[in-house]
Amino acid sequence: MQAIANHHDIPAAVGHLLQTELAVRRAEVLAIDPRLDTGVDELIRFTMNGGKRLRPQFLVCGWLAGGGSADGAAGEQAVRAAASLELIQACALLHDDIIDRSETRRGAPSAHRTMAKSHADGGFEGEAEHYGISSALILGDLALAWADDLFAEAALALDAPAAAWSAWREMRTEVLSGQLLDLRTAAANVGPAEQARDAMRVNRYKTAAYTVERPLQIGASLAGAGREVVAELRRFGVDIGIAFQLRDDLLGVFGDPSVTGKPAGDDLVEGKKTLLLATARSELAETSPALLAELDAGVGTAATPRQVDRLAGIIAGTDAVTAMEDRISELVTSGLAALDRSGIDDTVRRQLRDLAVAATQRRR
Amino acid sequence: MQAIANHHDIPAAVGHLLQTELAVRRAEVLAIDPRLDTGVDELIRFTMNGGKRLRPQFLVCGWLAGGGSADGAAGEQAVRAAASLELIQACALLHDDIIDRSETRRGAPSAHRTMAKSHADGGFEGEAEHYGISSALILGDLALAWADDLFAEAALALDAPAAAWSAWREMRTEVLSGQLLDLRTAAANVGPAEQARDAMRVNRYKTAAYTVERPLQIGASLAGAGREVVAELRRFGVDIGIAFQLRDDLLGVFGDPSVTGKPAGDDLVEGKKTLLLATARSELAETSPALLAELDAGVGTAATPRQVDRLAGIIAGTDAVTAMEDRISELVTSGLAALDRSGIDDTVRRQLRDLAVAATQRRR
Repeated sequence: MQAIANHHDIPAAVGHLLQTELAVRRAEVLAIDPRLDTGVDELIRFTMNGGKRLRPQFLVCGWLAGGGSADGAAGEQAVRAAASLELIQACALLHDDIIDRSETRRGAPSAHRTMAKSHADGGFEGEAEHYGISSALILGDLALAWADDLFAEAALALDAPAAAWSAWREMRTEVLSGQLLDLRTAAANVGPAEQARDAMRVNRYKTAAYTVERPLQIGASLAGAGREVVAELRRFGVDIGIAFQLRDDLLGVFGDPSVTGKPAGDDLVEGKKTLLLATARSELAETSPALLAELDAGVGTAATPRQVDRLAGIIAGTDAVTAMEDRISELVTSGLAALDRSGIDDTVRRQLRDLAVAATQRRR
Repeated sequence: MQAIANHHDIPAAVGHLLQTELAVRRAEVLAIDPRLDTGVDELIRFTMNGGKRLRPQFLVCGWLAGGGSADGAAGEQAVRAAASLELIQACALLHDDIIDRSETRRGAPSAHRTMAKSHADGGFEGEAEHYGISSALILGDLALAWADDLFAEAALALDAPAAAWSAWREMRTEVLSGQLLDLRTAAANVGPAEQARDAMRVNRYKTAAYTVERPLQIGASLAGAGREVVAELRRFGVDIGIAFQLRDDLLGVFGDPSVTGKPAGDDLVEGKKTLLLATARSELAETSPALLAELDAGVGTAATPRQVDRLAGIIAGTDAVTAMEDRISELVTSGLAALDRSGIDDTVRRQLRDLAVAATQRRR
C-alpha cells in the first residue's frame, strides 16, 4: 500500500482497499447463490462510486494527528477502518433513497431503481418497484454489517483501546438517531424558530458528528491519542461538520446539477427542512406573508423546473443565503482556532485545514 | 446473574441483559432528542417481546459444549453474545415486515404499523404509512448496529479467538444473503422441482444456519472449542436448523393462530414459496392439474379465511405433509447422531437434544 501521509492519497487508498475487500465478499455471496450477482454488484458499484471520501480522509487525518503511522501494516489498518465509514455511508444512502423515494444518486439511478429495473428486465413475478425497494433495503443491511466487520478487523489488528470502540459505537447510534430525528422533525408542523432549532439538531447528529467529529475521534483513538488532542480535534470537528452541512443545504437549493450530480433545487422538491429554509421563512414571516405562503405551499410539492426556480428565487431574495455564508465562515474560523490550540503536528494540521476548506467551500 | 447451566434459564438471563442494555441505549438516544422515545420504545418493546429465544439458547449451549463456564463473568459475557442474536433477529423481523407488508408480528401490530399509528395520532405532516415504514427501517438499522456492539463487547471481554469473530461475520453475510435470495427466488417463475431446490437453499441460509448452526459455532468458538467439536456441532446444527424451518412451513399453513400469534395460513396469504408448497405442487402436477391450477391461482392472492382454508385443504389432500414430517424426523435423527459422535459432555448433550426437539416439534 502507498503511504497516506498526504490526505489527497487517502481516497485512492480507500478505493483500492474497498475494491479488494468487496471482491472477497462478492465471492462469499455468490457461493451461496450465483443469482445474487445483480444485487451484490449494485452494492459494489454504489460503494465504489463513492464521491469525495471525506469521512475516510478525516479518520486518517485523526489517526495521523494522534501519532499513527502513515505507512506499513498499521497505516493499512487505519485505511481499513477509514474504508468502513464508506460502507456505513453506503447503508445510509441506500436507506435514505428509499425513505426519500429518490430516483437518482450521484448522477446515476438510485439502487432501488436499478434493482426494480432488473426485475422488469428479468420478467420476474410480482411488483418491480417493491422488489427494488426490498432489495436495496437488504443491500443496505449488508453494507452496515460489512462496515462493522471491516472496523472490527482493523481495531483488533491495531489492538485498539476501548476509546476507539466506544467512539465507533457512539457514532453509529448517533447517525441513526439523527436519521430518526430527521423523519420525526420533517413530520412536525412547527414555526420557523423551532424549525431552525430542529434543523440544527438534525445537522449535528445526522451529518456533522458522523462526517467530521466522530471520524477524527475514531482515527485519533485508534492511534491511542491523549484526551486533550482528541478533545480539540472534536471541537474542530463539530464546527467543520456543521459548516459542511450548511454548505450542503446551500448546494441543495442553488447547486449546479452538472457539478453536484443531483437535480436542481433537490431539497426544495423533497421538502427538506433545512436551516437555510427556516431562516428564509423567519424573515418572510416579518416582511412578506404572501411570499412565505407561496414558499410553504411550494416546498415539497414543486414539480417543474420553473416552480423550483421560483422557490429558489424567493429564498435568494432574503438575507438567508448571506446569513448561511456568514455562519459557515464563523464556524470555519472557530474550528480552525480549536485546531491551532491542539498542539497537533504542523504537517497534519495543514492537511486538516485543507480538508476543512474543501468540506465547506466545495461546489459538490 | 444466575447461572445458565440449564437451557431453560437462558431466555430469562437474555431478557434481563437485553432490558438493562436497551435502557442504557434508550437514554443515549433520548439525550439526542426526547421526541425519539416513541421509536426507541417500539424497538425495545419489539425486542423484549421476543418469543422463544431459541438462537441464544443454541449459542449458550454451544458455549457450554465448548467448555465455557455457566456462571461468573465469562458466563455473563456468553449471555451478552447470545443477546446480540436477538438484536439481529429484531432487525431481520422489522425489515421482513416491511418487505412482506405484514400487519402483525407475534400477535401485535408490526412496528411499521405502530409507527404509522403514532404519526396519525400525533397529527403529523405527510403520509402516515410511509413514515411508519421509514421509521421501522431505521429502527432495524439501530438493532443491527447494537447487535454488533453487544457482540464486540462480549468477544473483547472474552479475548475471543479469531474463529469466533469469523463465525459472527459469516453468519451475518449468510442470513442477509438468504434474505436477498428469498426475494430473488420469490420473483422467479419456475417449476416445482426448481422451486423445491430454491426453497431448500433459502431455508438453509436465511434460517437454518442462522438459527442453529452458526449460534452453536459462535458459542463454541467463543469458548475456544477445538475444531472437531465445532464441526460436529455444526453438522447437528445444519440438520436441526432445516428441520426447524420445515416445521415453520407446516405451522405457516396449518398452525393454530391462537398459539402461533400469526393469522391462519399466513404463508398462503403471503405466497411464500416453501418446500411444503413445492412438494404439494409436484404431486398435483402428476395427479390433478385442476387442483394445481386452483392452488397456484390462490397462493399469494387468497384474501378470505374461506379461500385460505380451501388452499390448506388442497395441500392437506396431498402426501406433502407426511413427506415433510418424515423429512423432519430424518433430519432430527441424523442431527442427534452427529451430536452423539461429538464427545460433548453428557449434561450439555442432553440439553441440546431437548432444544432440538423443542425447535422441531413446537406448535408455535
